[in-house]
Amino acid sequence: MHNKGSISSFDIAYIGGGSLNWATKLMGDLAFDGTIAAHIRLFDLDQAAAERNARIGMRYAGRADQTERLRYTAEPSLKAALTGADFVIISILPGSFDDMAHDIAIPERYGIRQSVGDTVGPGGFIRALRAIPELAEIAAAIGTFCPKAYVCNLTNPMSVLTGALYKVFPEIRAWGSCHEVIKIRKLLAFLANRRRGEVAFGYRDVKVNVLGINHFTFVDAASAGGMDMMTEYMAFAREHHADGWRENPIDPADEHVRYFEDMNRVKFDLACRFGVAGAAGDRHLAEFVPQSWYLDENERWKFGLTPVEYRIRERTEKQAAAAALDTGAALPPPAPSEEAIVEQIKALTGGPEHVGNVNLPNIGQMQGLPPGAIVETNARFSGLGIQPVHAGRLPAALEVIVRPHAERQTALVEAVLARDSAALLPLFLSDPLVSPIGLDRAAQMFRDMVAATTHRLPEALARLGKAA
Amino acid sequence: MHNKGSISSFDIAYIGGGSLNWATKLMGDLAFDGTIAAHIRLFDLDQAAAERNARIGMRYAGRADQTERLRYTAEPSLKAALTGADFVIISILPGSFDDMAHDIAIPERYGIRQSVGDTVGPGGFIRALRAIPELAEIAAAIGTFCPKAYVCNLTNPMSVLTGALYKVFPEIRAWGSCHEVIKIRKLLAFLANRRRGEVAFGYRDVKVNVLGINHFTFVDAASAGGMDMMTEYMAFAREHHADGWRENPIDPADEHVRYFEDMNRVKFDLACRFGVAGAAGDRHLAEFVPQSWYLDENERWKFGLTPVEYRIRERTEKQAAAAALDTGAALPPPAPSEEAIVEQIKALTGGPEHVGNVNLPNIGQMQGLPPGAIVETNARFSGLGIQPVHAGRLPAALEVIVRPHAERQTALVEAVLARDSAALLPLFLSDPLVSPIGLDRAAQMFRDMVAATTHRLPEALARLGKAA
Amino acid sequence: MHNKGSISSFDIAYIGGGSLNWATKLMGDLAFDGTIAAHIRLFDLDQAAAERNARIGMRYAGRADQTERLRYTAEPSLKAALTGADFVIISILPGSFDDMAHDIAIPERYGIRQSVGDTVGPGGFIRALRAIPELAEIAAAIGTFCPKAYVCNLTNPMSVLTGALYKVFPEIRAWGSCHEVIKIRKLLAFLANRRRGEVAFGYRDVKVNVLGINHFTFVDAASAGGMDMMTEYMAFAREHHADGWRENPIDPADEHVRYFEDMNRVKFDLACRFGVAGAAGDRHLAEFVPQSWYLDENERWKFGLTPVEYRIRERTEKQAAAAALDTGAALPPPAPSEEAIVEQIKALTGGPEHVGNVNLPNIGQMQGLPPGAIVETNARFSGLGIQPVHAGRLPAALEVIVRPHAERQTALVEAVLARDSAALLPLFLSDPLVSPIGLDRAAQMFRDMVAATTHRLPEALARLGKAA
Amino acid sequence: MHNKGSISSFDIAYIGGGSLNWATKLMGDLAFDGTIAAHIRLFDLDQAAAERNARIGMRYAGRADQTERLRYTAEPSLKAALTGADFVIISILPGSFDDMAHDIAIPERYGIRQSVGDTVGPGGFIRALRAIPELAEIAAAIGTFCPKAYVCNLTNPMSVLTGALYKVFPEIRAWGSCHEVIKIRKLLAFLANRRRGEVAFGYRDVKVNVLGINHFTFVDAASAGGMDMMTEYMAFAREHHADGWRENPIDPADEHVRYFEDMNRVKFDLACRFGVAGAAGDRHLAEFVPQSWYLDENERWKFGLTPVEYRIRERTEKQAAAAALDTGAALPPPAPSEEAIVEQIKALTGGPEHVGNVNLPNIGQMQGLPPGAIVETNARFSGLGIQPVHAGRLPAALEVIVRPHAERQTALVEAVLARDSAALLPLFLSDPLVSPIGLDRAAQMFRDMVAATTHRLPEALARLGKAA
Repeated sequence: MHNKGSISSFDIAYIGGGSLNWATKLMGDLAFDGTIAAHIRLFDLDQAAAERNARIGMRYAGRADQTERLRYTAEPSLKAALTGADFVIISILPGSFDDMAHDIAIPERYGIRQSVGDTVGPGGFIRALRAIPELAEIAAAIGTFCPKAYVCNLTNPMSVLTGALYKVFPEIRAWGSCHEVIKIRKLLAFLANRRRGEVAFGYRDVKVNVLGINHFTFVDAASAGGMDMMTEYMAFAREHHADGWRENPIDPADEHVRYFEDMNRVKFDLACRFGVAGAAGDRHLAEFVPQSWYLDENERWKFGLTPVEYRIRERTEKQAAAAALDTGAALPPPAPSEEAIVEQIKALTGGPEHVGNVNLPNIGQMQGLPPGAIVETNARFSGLGIQPVHAGRLPAALEVIVRPHAERQTALVEAVLARDSAALLPLFLSDPLVSPIGLDRAAQMFRDMVAATTHRLPEALARLGKAA
Repeated sequence: MHNKGSISSFDIAYIGGGSLNWATKLMGDLAFDGTIAAHIRLFDLDQAAAERNARIGMRYAGRADQTERLRYTAEPSLKAALTGADFVIISILPGSFDDMAHDIAIPERYGIRQSVGDTVGPGGFIRALRAIPELAEIAAAIGTFCPKAYVCNLTNPMSVLTGALYKVFPEIRAWGSCHEVIKIRKLLAFLANRRRGEVAFGYRDVKVNVLGINHFTFVDAASAGGMDMMTEYMAFAREHHADGWRENPIDPADEHVRYFEDMNRVKFDLACRFGVAGAAGDRHLAEFVPQSWYLDENERWKFGLTPVEYRIRERTEKQAAAAALDTGAALPPPAPSEEAIVEQIKALTGGPEHVGNVNLPNIGQMQGLPPGAIVETNARFSGLGIQPVHAGRLPAALEVIVRPHAERQTALVEAVLARDSAALLPLFLSDPLVSPIGLDRAAQMFRDMVAATTHRLPEALARLGKAA
Repeated sequence: MHNKGSISSFDIAYIGGGSLNWATKLMGDLAFDGTIAAHIRLFDLDQAAAERNARIGMRYAGRADQTERLRYTAEPSLKAALTGADFVIISILPGSFDDMAHDIAIPERYGIRQSVGDTVGPGGFIRALRAIPELAEIAAAIGTFCPKAYVCNLTNPMSVLTGALYKVFPEIRAWGSCHEVIKIRKLLAFLANRRRGEVAFGYRDVKVNVLGINHFTFVDAASAGGMDMMTEYMAFAREHHADGWRENPIDPADEHVRYFEDMNRVKFDLACRFGVAGAAGDRHLAEFVPQSWYLDENERWKFGLTPVEYRIRERTEKQAAAAALDTGAALPPPAPSEEAIVEQIKALTGGPEHVGNVNLPNIGQMQGLPPGAIVETNARFSGLGIQPVHAGRLPAALEVIVRPHAERQTALVEAVLARDSAALLPLFLSDPLVSPIGLDRAAQMFRDMVAATTHRLPEALARLGKAA
Repeated sequence: MHNKGSISSFDIAYIGGGSLNWATKLMGDLAFDGTIAAHIRLFDLDQAAAERNARIGMRYAGRADQTERLRYTAEPSLKAALTGADFVIISILPGSFDDMAHDIAIPERYGIRQSVGDTVGPGGFIRALRAIPELAEIAAAIGTFCPKAYVCNLTNPMSVLTGALYKVFPEIRAWGSCHEVIKIRKLLAFLANRRRGEVAFGYRDVKVNVLGINHFTFVDAASAGGMDMMTEYMAFAREHHADGWRENPIDPADEHVRYFEDMNRVKFDLACRFGVAGAAGDRHLAEFVPQSWYLDENERWKFGLTPVEYRIRERTEKQAAAAALDTGAALPPPAPSEEAIVEQIKALTGGPEHVGNVNLPNIGQMQGLPPGAIVETNARFSGLGIQPVHAGRLPAALEVIVRPHAERQTALVEAVLARDSAALLPLFLSDPLVSPIGLDRAAQMFRDMVAATTHRLPEALARLGKAA
């Protein structure tokens, strides 16, 4: 790609190309942007879904008169999708929603409530067991078929899976992309506009220094139009600490909002306690600390627990919508999504530089976390590639909470890749959601959870689900 | 001292010289050894106790015909004790047993059981608040009056206080000395003798590689007479995991044994879970992990919680015994104690080298723990000084539990020395005994505990005890 | 400043404000830019020069109708200039050209040829002795009078002096700014335009990844308009290795060109040997390696040695030009200089982000060089401050040459600030220009050089100039 | 071995078992010691030499009535020697003396004088090219046939070859053993005895803290019988700086002394300059710095250059002596050699602990040198294995000279093992003996040297000897 000069057409491999969410956002963004010529090769274990998305993609392209530039095909194999790709996007669902339902339900039987269950805690841990081998296979294929490609991972658990990509193929040019931090940037834009007395700033105009690990991210500096916004944020957090705040009130009838949004109480509380603002959504932040902190009383803290049952219903709706799009329903009005991927692609290929928060191995960008751990900080996307921007260090009292998660994630990746099943339960025990329930109950819960997902695991790990 | 050549007489300053325990052990050991000429200068806030101990010391010396060599005096000030000292021993009680009673009783009201309460957990944290300023004063005085002296710290919380010594006077030649590891060495000696079929080994003949932090120490290699003892220990731990084991059964009528000894069940359990043997006593190890692991069911795990009320009774007995010694009661029969201090003094001054586990700032001897953290590993004592021996690294699943304690301790020392009161509660919250009780209750407990010890704290910290 | 909101007027303290070079560039750039409101306070030991520059500054401002926005004053003291400053620019001459003449002439008597003599080698070392105490004084004053100010250091030896600023006042928000890397960016722009067949790129459109230390910088990745330019540069370097290359031939009659420019032969040679492109000017690069490599045959390598005698003549011309400007001569036509300072100021205060190569303490941005060493890499300037961008690592064979310079610089700063005169000669001995002349001759040269500049040194260092 | 209990018989594989020097020392030491039961399996490419040594070994054993315990056999293959070995000793000559003659003679033609030529400098570098592949083969075989064996490497270049062992088989339990440091310990013993006024100390009674890399080692602390000997050493070095000192004067007629011994002038000079004592022999130390420092005037500095021609003559004499021993000549009188290997074997198998200076990968024992570099410090040999003792850090001015050698060695090992021929010349260029001769001459010398040894190199490296 780099040698193709200026009149470039990129090959983009989309793994999980039957996706009902991310893939359509990309289609919309590429069409809306109008400057990129690309062949998007969709690969999915569900081949029909990939084919459907290819058709929908061509509809998007057609509407924007981009069919000369944008081409979508469904590919029969990972190899076919990857060979010669300039970019790879990985957006898969590790296992099924049924598996995910177990990840939530079994811990609940042991008294552990999880708001998401896909990152840390018992749910995130077991999901990682399923997902790491899948990502390992993809990383190896990238090493073989397109070793120079830029690789954007959108799959959770983000830190663990981005770590697996690098562990399997260390030269990979991958980053993990997550949009959680947009929320605090929107709040900061609100504050900046309020201060200016006019709507001068969108979230993209707010610069924030991000540091932490995916879904447990923090902001310790913020700026809009040259104004320091951090002091103001802290005052705002103290002011609304007790009741929370949201630009638009939560409509309890809107299930999506109820299950995915929050009133910032957890973010404000972390800000007041530790002096830096929590950056991810409250339901993510809450899963990294003992459940007595926030999860036990999530209603009081005003954030929802996302039921898998709702995810299943939502998927059904999305499938119906996709089928409708496929058979001629009107496309949504043209507008860019909030995903950064198109901006990132353009920056990497000579367009305007892009700086945004992404997940990368720590090569010094974040002091206090171990080298090689997957950390989330800003990085510069440019013709030079992806270069982390130095983010500094968390306050000591917070680092002591964040760092063990990062270390556990690194050790978990190594154990799964090495099929070192004996290493897993000891790691599981130290998760702060698991640890307080006691040794015997934690061990029993671990066996139950593994047993429930055993059909998704490599043989060497599956036997952990059996009674001792 | 080093320049005095071979016919040396050392000046030993003993801070806390009215001690009822350590000081008399030293007196006995010096007299029994018979090769060291020394002037032991006892300093204690309780001047009468120091004077009593000076008299007892002279009795010990007299019995062993060492009055030519050993001289004991009570000194009126820190300055008088330290000036020109070759060695300093620090063995003080931070605060009183009444303070310690609060350290245990208040957390108990919040559902937190502590077996010792002097190292980590809420009790250890608050004790550190009291003790760090005291040790800081001693360190500064050493820097002024005897900067080249070797300094042995015997006071708990050991890691935190040894860290405070180095933080205040970085050139200090100090180490923290703790005898907890002797217990596992005795057990290993038992196993080695059993294997040999004869009593060939005492605990001093068993070499162990120690790593961890004080009271949360581990052994990952052991050897006796060239035999690898680690494999055998692991088998023994598995064999006795369910019921525990002790060479002599615990007599429930013996309060001391009941409150201070254990059946090794915690050590065996840690060995089975993490692959390395726990090295400190069970009641210490149990305090570093959530109380649901061991403390909640200490009777099932067969170790005692040490009541402060018993400590007070024991002290009364010791005081009576000291008074008796002072007025002519028979000295105990001559025998070396298990303390290493006399061996260490001799090794530092040209006698046989000594290798033993001590607490020192991490300068590379323990991988995986941060530089500067106070870690417990073996060190070599010789005419060259105290040099840590490289100890390797803990298994990942254990390191993730040990390291945050070490980081919290470092941050705690810095916060107290800087009188940064705002930094304390956030650190307190992450202790695994505190963390599960929830944010509000933890904050209330912190205030209660500080309020109870407020008379021992510097003004800048004392105000933390007031309601928010 | 940050709290002034958008209608900002900045206070800029210019230390060395009588400068004949940098100060007038800033005046021109500020006037040309037209968007910045500022009070520029010039301070110089030569008060008359500062006053003259203040008058010239007002002429520039007047021409661009900026007198409402731009105000220049000469200040009577460091304190007056710094108090309340938002920005500080440091551009002083450590010592005089007479001192610099000794820095060149004395080593020449020992067979050491220096092309510049202000960075490393014997000249750079002795210049550092003079300059570090001066910068230390400025750093301390910044800590007192404007601790939050952004501080741009333009003074050589850049690495050493930026290091001194941070050592004296660790919270300083300083960076060292140097334009040497522009040269390779221009060459890369030439190559990019040649490839495109049109003049599409200026040097600002060429992105380069810079790594190394000031004046010994390298580029290992380059991009223009999405095209990878590194492969092309390497081919070009090989092609022109033997004869060098320059867009415009060197006119031997043009003394400035002859003494300051080069034919890129050293850069090309380093590129061919080590696989990464030398980035600074050849006369700088040549001073970091033994003189047998390039300096011995500088004519063959086609770069000049800059005579101090020429610098003195040039200064006389500049003084005359300044006097003329001061008395009404026409200002140069309005055009931006190549200095980045105005862009940097704007980026820091809410304008467009700026990424460029600057000198900062290593906090992880450059692997392989020690933490705290002053390294030159890209940094992001934005409302969040100055954040280094991760630059990767030099090839091992080059790192082994670069790193000792960085270590020597760090040790030199520490020794001068501690007035540890005994540490200096041992450090001096290991410089690659000094080292080969032998121990006795090097020591004699050191004494000669110190003796020649003894009037500029603190008493504790001055005595090094005396015979042993 | 560890599991054999106390009545152990060890299997010792001796690679290079036809050795004329080290092997016979071992035979003498084992016989003299009288406590070790062992089967020593000699392997040598020169099978006849191994067989001869096996016969001589049995004679030694017989004299000491050890034939029950000690058995020597010559083995036909590496596999036969290694399989099941408890200990491995590696003592080979990489290439022949003819090769070594080129290592010295070719640089001499370029004006580079080398006193030894087997460690660093051009000779050491080229020797490493030959030797690394040989050691790599041995390391791989150890990994296959006796992965738990303790491995003592005696072969030079020591640092590079010990590094190669660990790079090829990271779990190897190897150390590099070198007796150079004995010299300074003898001198210190002399000083200690002088101070005591009696012969109280042998070199084994002198404790020294060793730090550096093999043959470029330093001592910064020394102690004998509790006396600090470092201050006295420094005074002695200053006193004898000008003329040197040796307990017995050098007899110019004694070739061996003339070529291998020194008057300590280099050691004293380094001590005076850098504040820590040089520890290796002067002829080794001198090769790590520019030849203008010491090598150019080795006679003035009173150390010899060892001619390869003399080595060849010496070998002939040794061969004759070996043949005589083989055919009944009287064995030398029983006495222990100065080699530590027997003490080390005993310490590792349950005998008295041994602390001595050895070469190991840096895992924290030496601050300031990179992790993984092979450093020389003290290590503890005990039943727990080989554990480095923390050695501290060199003075900054010395570290800046030592560290690049260590980095070059690490990079050299990696380049040779990866057959990365392009990486070699750039590394070669930065050696301080090579660097000053200029780029073109250095490149030509490199080609000449490679060409002369090309028959000993793997194909991938051999082509470097061809003209560019």
